[in-house]
Amino acid sequence: MFEQLGLIGCGLMGGSFALALKRAGLVKRVVGYSKSPSTTEKARQLGVIDVEAPSALLAVSGADVVLVAVPVAATEATFKAIRHLVDRDMLIMDVGSTKRDVIDSARRALRENVGAFVPCHPVAGKEVSGVEHADPDLYSGKQVVLTPIEKTQVAQLAKAEALWDALGCHVLKMSPEAHDSAFAAVSHLPHMVAFALVNAIVSQPTGPDFLSLAGPGFRDFTRIAASDPKVWRDILMANRQELLEQSRLFQSSLAGLEKLLESGDGEGLESLIGQASSTRARWRMGKK
Amino acid sequence: MFEQLGLIGCGLMGGSFALALKRAGLVKRVVGYSKSPSTTEKARQLGVIDVEAPSALLAVSGADVVLVAVPVAATEATFKAIRHLVDRDMLIMDVGSTKRDVIDSARRALRENVGAFVPCHPVAGKEVSGVEHADPDLYSGKQVVLTPIEKTQVAQLAKAEALWDALGCHVLKMSPEAHDSAFAAVSHLPHMVAFALVNAIVSQPTGPDFLSLAGPGFRDFTRIAASDPKVWRDILMANRQELLEQSRLFQSSLAGLEKLLESGDGEGLESLIGQASSTRARWRMGKK
Repeated sequence: MFEQLGLIGCGLMGGSFALALKRAGLVKRVVGYSKSPSTTEKARQLGVIDVEAPSALLAVSGADVVLVAVPVAATEATFKAIRHLVDRDMLIMDVGSTKRDVIDSARRALRENVGAFVPCHPVAGKEVSGVEHADPDLYSGKQVVLTPIEKTQVAQLAKAEALWDALGCHVLKMSPEAHDSAFAAVSHLPHMVAFALVNAIVSQPTGPDFLSLAGPGFRDFTRIAASDPKVWRDILMANRQELLEQSRLFQSSLAGLEKLLESGDGEGLESLIGQASSTRARWRMGKK
Repeated sequence: MFEQLGLIGCGLMGGSFALALKRAGLVKRVVGYSKSPSTTEKARQLGVIDVEAPSALLAVSGADVVLVAVPVAATEATFKAIRHLVDRDMLIMDVGSTKRDVIDSARRALRENVGAFVPCHPVAGKEVSGVEHADPDLYSGKQVVLTPIEKTQVAQLAKAEALWDALGCHVLKMSPEAHDSAFAAVSHLPHMVAFALVNAIVSQPTGPDFLSLAGPGFRDFTRIAASDPKVWRDILMANRQELLEQSRLFQSSLAGLEKLLESGDGEGLESLIGQASSTRARWRMGKK
């Protein structure tokens, strides 16, 4: 149980966390800050936060738990803004989709207090952004990956685990490197591919007509293409090395299918489609 | 109102059509045939068809409406099998995702009776196949594209339009060429890309671990990768020229994103993601 959550970034991710924490009775008071004062005000009006803070630093004042829920490229500036009020007894977490860059920022900005920071990636989201879409169920039943480093305090790690667990999440721990490799493949690449495919269609003269014919397969495949541009710019850029490597493997896999099409090899094509189909049919979210 | 539906192919698409027609009171009797006798039997046991036919030809005997719902590469053999009982008063339709190859097959096999055939593509489906997933609501609210040719009889076209309309579909008409170009972009390419991406991940040594971390974005993006291998082998192969052209445009769009990542151009990246995001956010299924 916490006294006060300092929420920095009152968007979809941060707002949903605050609502979930409140509903679970895990926090008494939420003090929130967003870069845009109108967002902070809306968060208060919606009951997502209780008190508006005029700065990130003041959102941290008096907090025993802090969530940094900003686009990953804004993490370092945020840590620098709050460092003077960070102490080793606080639990500080983030929700970033990349972990190595966030941890580098934390080391540089928080220095001797970096042990208070537990890097977190809840594997949850929506294609819409903004506090108006905040949802106390967003994290429920989802996986949360924690990527502690050698300096992470054991007590803070245990608190973070217990907190996400209490929100109904499945908590996993792995190295920041393993995390970034995996999410390059299963999240960042699909986003980049979905962006590229939508752009390729809409850039054709007949693209708008084509789009008007698209059905449920297209709807689901491209849902993630509607994601927030600033958030995804930061994620793709932060993890670009792993992402470019995954994109190379993907393009080689695509070229294999094209070669079978060009040579008219129906048997080979059926076999590769069969591999994808049986893999995907067996897959269950959050299961080995 | 029809007396008897001859259903050739009692799978997801054909079975759903039979159930929808029955529920709407548009047919008195459904006589069904599938290549596998156990499928035909299951279709009867499930109430999808009323009578099992021992051959495609016998499924057509006595029918005033015929639906050919087989993988597109099996269309020509099916038309050849039934040609001796096809007459100009019947309404014959298909549900194929490609139209030029199906029409070529119909011209070759049905010859002077090709005017009884109205080429149809209901833009509906599921990633699961088989009559056990047949669903009377599958087509409801979906688009159906009719691609008549110069020989298509006006009366049969009008009957087909009225039938799909009565099932709650939005009926569109266009040329087979326009159809195949559009669906290469919005359906066949997304399927090929989803197959390639799943294969690229699972072929890596750490692929299974990566997959166990994947979340809701991956789930929706790859849903179509679980599609039936034979059905999609045929579709991709039948429309390969248009598909390869769309794949080329997609890869060029992807290369544009990669170039911005490599050069660290965050502004350019945000702009391209923004184009995809606003396009997809505005898109509504079945709306111009």
